[in-house]
Amino acid sequence: MNTYSILAKKRDGGTLTPDEIRFFIQGYTKGEIADYQASALLMAICINGMNADETSELTLAMLQSGDQADLSSLAGIPCDKHSTGGVGDKTSLITVPIVAACGGSVAKMSGRGLGFTGGTIDKLESIPGFRTALTVEEMVNYTNRSGLCICGQTGSLAPADKKLYALRDVTATVDSIPLIAASIMSKKLASGAQAIVLDVKTGSGAFMKEEADSVALAEAMVGIGKSAGRRIAALITDMDQPLGRCVGNGLEVREAAELLQGKSADDRLYRLSVELAARMLALSGLGTVEDCRVRAGEAVSSGKAFEKLCRMAQQQGGDPRALEQPERLPQGKFSRIIKAPRSGYLSRIDTARIGHAAGLLGAGRVKKEDSIDLGAGIIFARRKGEKLQAGEELCRICAGSEAGFSAAEEAILGGMEISDCSPVCKELIRQVIE
Amino acid sequence: MNTYSILAKKRDGGTLTPDEIRFFIQGYTKGEIADYQASALLMAICINGMNADETSELTLAMLQSGDQADLSSLAGIPCDKHSTGGVGDKTSLITVPIVAACGGSVAKMSGRGLGFTGGTIDKLESIPGFRTALTVEEMVNYTNRSGLCICGQTGSLAPADKKLYALRDVTATVDSIPLIAASIMSKKLASGAQAIVLDVKTGSGAFMKEEADSVALAEAMVGIGKSAGRRIAALITDMDQPLGRCVGNGLEVREAAELLQGKSADDRLYRLSVELAARMLALSGLGTVEDCRVRAGEAVSSGKAFEKLCRMAQQQGGDPRALEQPERLPQGKFSRIIKAPRSGYLSRIDTARIGHAAGLLGAGRVKKEDSIDLGAGIIFARRKGEKLQAGEELCRICAGSEAGFSAAEEAILGGMEISDCSPVCKELIRQVIE
Repeated sequence: MNTYSILAKKRDGGTLTPDEIRFFIQGYTKGEIADYQASALLMAICINGMNADETSELTLAMLQSGDQADLSSLAGIPCDKHSTGGVGDKTSLITVPIVAACGGSVAKMSGRGLGFTGGTIDKLESIPGFRTALTVEEMVNYTNRSGLCICGQTGSLAPADKKLYALRDVTATVDSIPLIAASIMSKKLASGAQAIVLDVKTGSGAFMKEEADSVALAEAMVGIGKSAGRRIAALITDMDQPLGRCVGNGLEVREAAELLQGKSADDRLYRLSVELAARMLALSGLGTVEDCRVRAGEAVSSGKAFEKLCRMAQQQGGDPRALEQPERLPQGKFSRIIKAPRSGYLSRIDTARIGHAAGLLGAGRVKKEDSIDLGAGIIFARRKGEKLQAGEELCRICAGSEAGFSAAEEAILGGMEISDCSPVCKELIRQVIE
Repeated sequence: MNTYSILAKKRDGGTLTPDEIRFFIQGYTKGEIADYQASALLMAICINGMNADETSELTLAMLQSGDQADLSSLAGIPCDKHSTGGVGDKTSLITVPIVAACGGSVAKMSGRGLGFTGGTIDKLESIPGFRTALTVEEMVNYTNRSGLCICGQTGSLAPADKKLYALRDVTATVDSIPLIAASIMSKKLASGAQAIVLDVKTGSGAFMKEEADSVALAEAMVGIGKSAGRRIAALITDMDQPLGRCVGNGLEVREAAELLQGKSADDRLYRLSVELAARMLALSGLGTVEDCRVRAGEAVSSGKAFEKLCRMAQQQGGDPRALEQPERLPQGKFSRIIKAPRSGYLSRIDTARIGHAAGLLGAGRVKKEDSIDLGAGIIFARRKGEKLQAGEELCRICAGSEAGFSAAEEAILGGMEISDCSPVCKELIRQVIE
């Protein structure tokens, strides 16, 4: 077995053995296999694919390339959720407190965002004082105490993935279901969760635009999770419009907090957050999905989930008053109202362009080192399918500077279609893969 | 246009435009495109292929990455031959003098061998004093004076090919007809020939084992040559047994000289050498293939081709006496006779193993820096299809040391089959592609 023969086999459409996959990942992580050999294999995988067994082996090899969080001293079954990423997706801020309020244990590691808007960690850092850099011990202690904790990655999880991802990014080898599935799942498995709910987005604002691709990715990830002995399920959910009313870090924390306080709630955001929580609770062995769905709703209406969110903030050094008094959250001092250019139905939202607009306002980062304007973002007055009049408010943009306003406005208006007919709005939750 | 989009296009099976190919080759040659991006593209080409136009554009881009020999002051049409490489292939030493004797102009650049046995340049260096490092001016002057010259590459021909080849060699991207065709033809076009005859080998001792692959390669190369405005044809020829009786540098020079002196001639070697010469002459506009074939035979029988070989040697500082007195050529002082282990017909020769055996004796190099034992090699007493008795001489091996004898003997015997039935011997010249 050598690097050359592995490359030749995948080039010719063959199936790699577990030993071959392990040899390659170990060699590449150690620097014994060169970038130019790894990129050739990645391209061969992109074109010729990998079957389910190969994909699972690849994930395990990447998982074993680094540390794995030891959650053995956690009371209860550690459960987690993962979203493939979308615009305005703040479900973690809502779902995790609901699960904790219903007796689940969520010791969650999240990432920073790269692209349109910040990740969950960036959003949480809008809460003054909130610490996201924790040790595994702190994470376990906090979760044992209150049922939840969300922090940044600890240790070196799946370093093979980090190295491979950087290479895929510059060699046009990102778009491959086995490679995407292995990348996500190697980190997820390394973070120690035993029960995992995946939220695989589909549509114009998702990484996977076509539902069939989203389903294939979900099936690959569920397969990996099962072969690694985890309890796992995936929802295929709509990303043909932003999720909720707000896009942007501080704005999304505010929207999540308001939802949990019953102040105002976007129906789609509420339903998806509750559904994710119900699935996490059910996989944790805390009841049927139906029972858990009812209890999750009660956790919101009773205020118990909001209490958990405040508890988490406090526990991690954050100021819980920011969750009740939105003026304590960052919000850009400049704002502009964007008006509907004509009357009609808001029939299409190119959601990736909305994300791009948020990025232009400063809510996201292009490079890892970039800083984020936590107060920048977009607040929608209208949702897809709604009827509106020319000149009425479509949305409001805000940021710490007006520099990106014109470009963002152009992107938003260019990404929306107003037509004379009412559009068909797709189902929020399309499928469940389990 | 950028590197990423080019990679993504070929990954998805698209057709690259001339501009994209040129951008990539120029960027890679200059070091602006990284090895890991080039290897990803090479793998995508290996799997998804390139059409004839793409292959021609790739060749031209590689050709234009470096110097091109200026043969404009050469009298007559510069013609050349190229072999894809085989075991015992010394046709250049015979064909080039025949062409010169019949009025053709051959200013030929050849390579050193890497692999089994030496290349034409290594073989010529068996002639004491023979200089192969010439300037283009010397090459043109010698050819104008006597009709022929064979030297090593001058200047930096197709540096993109050199860089890409080194990368292909370690990324399992060698086996691709468009890449092989572009590699060979970029150098061939850069060396200035206007009329080109390709000898594409097929069989157990060839790079292409299957005839269909050899034909596809020949068609690709002929297509490239035509689109570059050259006169070109290809022969598909047998490499299921060594060509001629000898394998090894000094031994092959001796065999070529003896053939041109009418002392002894292997029929297959004679026929192929004459056919290649006839095709080169015909493409040079010096008559029909039939006429040229007759004149090529006469150039051998009259001794005029041998005179040209001696003239070339003298012109390039070599001792022409070595061509008449074989004892002046290097020949290993140790030798061993290998005997037939049983009686029967010599039914199969794994020709690659014979080449490997010659390498074990010191006749080839594994790395560029390795030195060659010019006196090492194999002299066959029997040919494929002949009947032999147990214990009679099959071949003789010789070298400057006995160190490789046992391994070489094992390789030779392991590569030969003796059976009770007379085998079918394949045609020497299988097809002509023009």
